[in-house]
Order: sequence, then structure tokens, then C-alpha cells
Amino acid sequence: MSEYIEHDQQGVSVGLVEKKFFTFCEPPDEMILESGGKLGPVTIAYETYGKLNDDRNNVILILHALSGDSHAAGYSSEEDPKPGWWDIMVGPGKGIDTEKYFVVCSNILGSCMGSTGPTSKNPHTGKPYGLDFPLVTVGDMIDAQKALMDHLGIKRILGLIGGSLGGMQVLEWCVRYPEMVLSAIPLASTTKHSALAIAFNEVARQAIMADPNWNNGNYYAGPKPDLGLAVARMIGHITYLSDESMRLKFGRRLQDKSDFSFNFDADFQVESYLRHQGSKFVDRFDANAFLYITKAGDYFDLESQHGDGSAVKAFSKARAKFLIVSFTSDWLYPTYQSRSMVKAMKKNGLDVSFCEIQADWGHDAFLLPSKRLSNLIKGFLERVYREEIKQ
Amino acid sequence: MSEYIEHDQQGVSVGLVEKKFFTFCEPPDEMILESGGKLGPVTIAYETYGKLNDDRNNVILILHALSGDSHAAGYSSEEDPKPGWWDIMVGPGKGIDTEKYFVVCSNILGSCMGSTGPTSKNPHTGKPYGLDFPLVTVGDMIDAQKALMDHLGIKRILGLIGGSLGGMQVLEWCVRYPEMVLSAIPLASTTKHSALAIAFNEVARQAIMADPNWNNGNYYAGPKPDLGLAVARMIGHITYLSDESMRLKFGRRLQDKSDFSFNFDADFQVESYLRHQGSKFVDRFDANAFLYITKAGDYFDLESQHGDGSAVKAFSKARAKFLIVSFTSDWLYPTYQSRSMVKAMKKNGLDVSFCEIQADWGHDAFLLPSKRLSNLIKGFLERVYREEIKQ
Repeated sequence: MSEYIEHDQQGVSVGLVEKKFFTFCEPPDEMILESGGKLGPVTIAYETYGKLNDDRNNVILILHALSGDSHAAGYSSEEDPKPGWWDIMVGPGKGIDTEKYFVVCSNILGSCMGSTGPTSKNPHTGKPYGLDFPLVTVGDMIDAQKALMDHLGIKRILGLIGGSLGGMQVLEWCVRYPEMVLSAIPLASTTKHSALAIAFNEVARQAIMADPNWNNGNYYAGPKPDLGLAVARMIGHITYLSDESMRLKFGRRLQDKSDFSFNFDADFQVESYLRHQGSKFVDRFDANAFLYITKAGDYFDLESQHGDGSAVKAFSKARAKFLIVSFTSDWLYPTYQSRSMVKAMKKNGLDVSFCEIQADWGHDAFLLPSKRLSNLIKGFLERVYREEIKQ
Repeated sequence: MSEYIEHDQQGVSVGLVEKKFFTFCEPPDEMILESGGKLGPVTIAYETYGKLNDDRNNVILILHALSGDSHAAGYSSEEDPKPGWWDIMVGPGKGIDTEKYFVVCSNILGSCMGSTGPTSKNPHTGKPYGLDFPLVTVGDMIDAQKALMDHLGIKRILGLIGGSLGGMQVLEWCVRYPEMVLSAIPLASTTKHSALAIAFNEVARQAIMADPNWNNGNYYAGPKPDLGLAVARMIGHITYLSDESMRLKFGRRLQDKSDFSFNFDADFQVESYLRHQGSKFVDRFDANAFLYITKAGDYFDLESQHGDGSAVKAFSKARAKFLIVSFTSDWLYPTYQSRSMVKAMKKNGLDVSFCEIQADWGHDAFLLPSKRLSNLIKGFLERVYREEIKQ
């Protein structure tokens, strides 16, 4: 969408980056999951940008959303046509300045982008897990990230940052390992999915499971449930935009036609856009991983899991300084949800800054170039560094 | 949803009603469609309530939405467990008073509830049309209704009323046959679908067409695309509600469980609700009809079809008195869309009343019991009758 809005200079990239892997819980050791299930070995794919300083206190951990990966910035190879998914934010002199900070981004547990998930080999069968993969929670994702931090010798994180499901991970980190987190920036996020958010996820899952190629999750040897996954992704894309952004981006403009087709072709540009997004997604993402990660998002409920239903009680465990950012047109995790976490944090006397950014671009706005957002994040991290490290 | 809001007494029903059929364009005669296609014979299913007076000037025509039918009020048989879809509004002493008015409701062209549509027998093959059925527009639906009015000997309609796609039909009537319409009540409606509304319809259509049982529309002899149609309906149901109504109706309440299933069962009540709505729908509706009717809705654009892109010009043809009603939480056809038609009508000096009803129930609100809505409609129709007929 970047062609539609004025955006920052892309600036300098971090250059070539290498995807690394960390494996723990090798047999007979196993990770005990929140469901009671066990998992091992566990591999976490990650990338790092910038340099860890001698005091190991300049660490920024980026948490990605549903379909993200560890490749947040830079290029994977000389031929790589596109930089990582948040290259506008992460790099020399950018919002998350890789000249100053040691930035880590890891792929979440349960994904299909290098970390252990349903596409991984089940050591008990030698085949991909499929639905034998245990259900993982946001808490489990954080436990795996904690293991990675331990492996990297990082005891304190200067800043956690992430949007959407990444923001939910940020919040979970802050109450699960409060002593490790100096500051936290959840963007376009929530302490728990609304019924509406669950509803969209559930319909997307039903679209996948309705595809006969899904075959109860056993499709790795045969045809994949591409049609179902494409529909699921199309549903997702609607929720990432907004009435206003779709009006600006597409309106009722027709696709390569001066008149209607009078059949079921894609007449409108918005139809072509969605079809394109759906078919592109199936080339890079796994249907089972989509099921597992959306379910983890729906299960996430910081208030009931950490505060007996009270956000105030849940955040009583937190120690971090917070920058909460919401976007006016985000109807997936609307501003009222951010406001309610801000309120609960303030009742605990936490240091909280809150900003609602005026943006027509819906939930997706957190991923789009915004000088305002970059400056907010940059300023906040500098303040935390000044107050917590250089004091 | 009626258990959640205070509602009117159901009141007296119109009692037993009979579905009737009117067939026109018998071979070799054919209906010429807006696409240029031809169709014949054409059957329209309809019901009537109340009595046509001697002057034939007490006619109210009800236009139904996407999945509606001609059975708006009363009972089809002694065993019928449920009255028609708008029984709360249509009956003796109700908002549309069958003691005063002769009320007609017909099933739209392209549907599967008795009127000619893709499930009907193609006279050229002796088999159901499937995708050989020509694409019909909202204008074609109105032409078929006009033929029914002619058949019933009705030259002037006291009041047209309908919500959603029914409201779009109301608007089309007013500019297509302005001399026939004394008053018009579009509820929760629009002069044209936004990109967001088109997007939801398109994803629903894709869900149907992704089902291998859909088989390019040829499924009448074999298994039906029930899974695809169920997903399509689930998407629809999300758009009929609202963030707030889903929070009130479901929140994060679990379904028959004290804890998560940690699998892909329906954990949350909202998931069960959607699955139930999806599976219930496939028993009563046809997947191809869903495709045709949603496409007609997407094509509808009163401004470009009747005003060269100008709503003011389009409504310059209208003669009716209008009562426009929108609902605060309707995000499918939000209030701003109603306001813009009100503005265009007023610029033409038309007699327009506008009411935005405070309702948490989203787009569906127009179908729910509301004393306010009933009284509004009742009062408006009485005024029109007084001013236009009894003058």
C-alpha cells in the first residue's frame, strides 16, 4: 500500500542478513506446553541486526504478527528482491536504530518459517506433524523466545516491540518475565480477542478445513488446501484494511474493463486485489500453521490467564515502561482496547505513554511507513535507554 | 437475537397465508435483461396480506434482502412452527398494518425461493440452469416486480419498503418507475456497495467456488457445495452483527466447556453460533442463487446507472416521499451512506425524513423488533396515506 501514502525515505538497509537457528529441548528433554502437551526438539529461527554491546543491555526484541517471520530487515541474499517485512522501521538511523541497538527477531513457535510447527518433522513418526502438533499458546511462544534469549546470553531486554499478535506477545512477555523487560511497545494490539476477532479467525479456519485437500491436516505428501487457505487469507486482508482505506485504495473501480463482465470474474479492483493476496499467500504459508497461530491468538487472554479476569491485576506483575499505540481506523483491535490496557497499567502506577495515530489504513497501519510512528518509537527507546541504562 | 432486547408484543398474526406464483414471458416471449441476456418464462413467487381496497390505492410492497423470500408474515401451514421473516412488522395493528393496507411481498428474480433463478428448469435443456442462468441486476428484479404489479392491476404503490438489498430495490423502483411510487422506505441501505461490502461478497463467493462440489455450478444431481456455502454464510453473519453486538451476545464465553479444547473444536460460543448459522443455511438456500444475488448487489450503483455518477441527478427522477432509516452500528451500509442519499434527495426538493436509530445490533438491526422503528414506519405510512390519498 506504500504507493498510496506519503512515506519515509526507505533509508539505508542493514544489508545482507543470515537466518540462524537455535534448537533446544533435544530428546529426552521436552518443552512442557501450557496445554499440558510436550514438544521437543524445538527449533527457533531468528535473525539479528546491529551489535550486542559489551554490557549486553542494548537489546531490542521484535515480535512478529500472524504470518510474519524472523526476517524483519535487510536482504537474505544478493538476489533478494525485497527487504524484510519491517525494513522501513529497522536499520541504521531508523525508528529502531541498528547503529545503537542489537535487534533480534525470531519466528514464533507453531509457524512455518523456520521455527518448529506443524510442518516440522515429528521425531516419533519421521513425518510432518500435521495435526499431531500440539496446540501452542502465546505463553509457549514467549517461553521459546526466552530460551533463545538465554542462549544468546541476554538477561535484560531494553525494548520489546510488536504489532497485532506481536503486540500480544509483548504484553505476555511483560507479565511472564517482568524482571527481564525494561520497556515494551505493543502496537495495534489487545489483551484479548473480541468476539468479532475470534469470529473472523474461526471463519478463516473453517474455510481451510472445508477444503477437501486439507484432509484433516495430512496434506504434506499430496495436494495442499490452497483454495481454502486463499479464502482464509482474503478474509484476513479485509480485516487488515478499513472501510475508508478500501474506498481510497479501490472504491468501485473496475479491473481492466469498461463494463461489467456479467459473470463471476473479478469485475472490481478490490476483487482482484483479494484474489491476488489469497493466491500469493498459499505460496509462502502453511494452512496448518495458520490454524495453530490463529487459535493461539484466540486463546490469548492476559486478564484471565494472569489476573483472574482483571487487567489491573494482570498488569500488577509488569515492570516495564510502556508505549501503547493504536490506530483510529483499526476495527480488528480498536482503540478502546488499547485504552483499557492503558487504564489498567496506570492503575498500577506504571510509566505508560499512549498514542492513537490518525490513520485511514486500518489494522495494517502499524506496518506502513509513518514518520510519526518511527519518531515515536525512536524517541521512546532513547528515553528508556537514557533513563534505564545511562543513569 | 430477540431475547437480548426489549421488543414489541408479537401481536396478532395475519394467520395462514398461501404462496402464489405469477408466470410471464412465456415462450416465445422473453424478458430482456440489463446485461442484454434474455430469460423466459419468468415466475415470481409472492404472498399478499390484507385486502386491496376498491380504489386499489392501499398497496404496500415489501422488498426482501439477500436470503429472504416472499413469506414475510403469517404461517404457511397449520404445522408451520415459525411465522414469516418480518411478522413482527407486518400484521393487524403492526408497523405495516394489514387491516389498512394490501401488502405484497415477492421473491426476487434470481433467488431460489419460488421465483425463477439458477435452480429453475432451463427450458432449453430441461435441467436446472446452474451457471447458464443469465446474470440479473437489481433493475431486472424491479422489472419482474413491475410485471407482477401489472398482473395484480396495481398502478400506484402507496409505500415501498425494504432493508439492505431490499432497500436498494426500493431506491431502484423510485427512479425506474417514479410515477408508480407514492412513498419509499429504504432501511439500512445504500445507493451503491462500498469496496468493503464488495470485498465481503467476493470472499463469500470465493468460498463457494472453492468447494469442489460446486463443480462450476453443476451440482444439482450430485453433492452440493454445502461447506463452501456455509463459510459464505458465516462471513455474511459477521457483517450483519457488530463489534458491540458480538461482545454483548457472546463475549469470550466458552461453549459447554470450562476450559479450552486445545484442538480445533468450537471453543467459543461465537464459533458455535457461526457454525450453526452456516449449517442451517445450506438446508434452505442455494449456492448459485447466493452467487447471483450478491453479484447483483455489487453491480447496483444508482448513481452511475441513473445519474452519470451523480446521486443528485439520479434522484431527480424520483417523485416519492422518503423515510430513510439507518442504524448506528451498521458497518456494512453505514449511516454516512444513508446521509449522502438524503442530501441528494433534498437537493432535488424531495420530501425526505431521515432517522438514524441508536442500535448496537449492527446491520441486522432492521430485522429486529423495535418499537421505535415500527412507530416510525406506521406514522410515515399514515401521513402519506392522509396526504396522498385522503386529500
